[in-house]
Amino acid sequence: MSGVHDQPDWYCDEVLPGRVPVEVVAEDEDALAFRRPSSVTGRDRILVIPRVHVRSLLELDPHSAAPLLRMVQQAARLLTEEHGGCEVITRCGDSQHNRHLHWHVVAGPRETDI
Amino acid sequence: MSGVHDQPDWYCDEVLPGRVPVEVVAEDEDALAFRRPSSVTGRDRILVIPRVHVRSLLELDPHSAAPLLRMVQQAARLLTEEHGGCEVITRCGDSQHNRHLHWHVVAGPRETDI
Repeated sequence: MSGVHDQPDWYCDEVLPGRVPVEVVAEDEDALAFRRPSSVTGRDRILVIPRVHVRSLLELDPHSAAPLLRMVQQAARLLTEEHGGCEVITRCGDSQHNRHLHWHVVAGPRETDI
Repeated sequence: MSGVHDQPDWYCDEVLPGRVPVEVVAEDEDALAFRRPSSVTGRDRILVIPRVHVRSLLELDPHSAAPLLRMVQQAARLLTEEHGGCEVITRCGDSQHNRHLHWHVVAGPRETDI
């Protein structure tokens, strides 16, 4: 893990250094994708994070986002093949509980009303 | 609107040609962002779409996605300023009901369990 983060976060402190075991789906020098079904709904889910600390989508440099976006697509393609469809979600501001950019790729039919 | 779409869709057929009035939040040659509160939940929402037809996130070229991503960020920044936070969502496969890539940027505190 490189980059600087300004408060404790599970992704930087636990996942990226390998302190907690995760089921890796894809990884490269820029990003990591791992499967972690939702503890709330039980829906199958893949989380995709950059290796460098980026606080949220708002701080992502769009001109260097291609590797991360490609991995989000890879996760979405996998869950779409396995389940028929998926939702790709990230949160900003008060809605974001962990201050390291993370994309939820959540399996299955449409469930949330937006 | 340029590009080819393979079935009727509201974005290509109605919004991009200007056949329905929308409250434009931002636009440029690549993308359009317009406010359209959710008819289901009433949450404030901005929809962000590419002007060229892209069927879904799975078909988006990550190396030319910067302009669209920048507009999604602009919408997310606006709703975060106005409401404190937001969710950024797109769907793939059976979960996607309109076959033109669209990002929902939905205002407010965390509501959906994922």
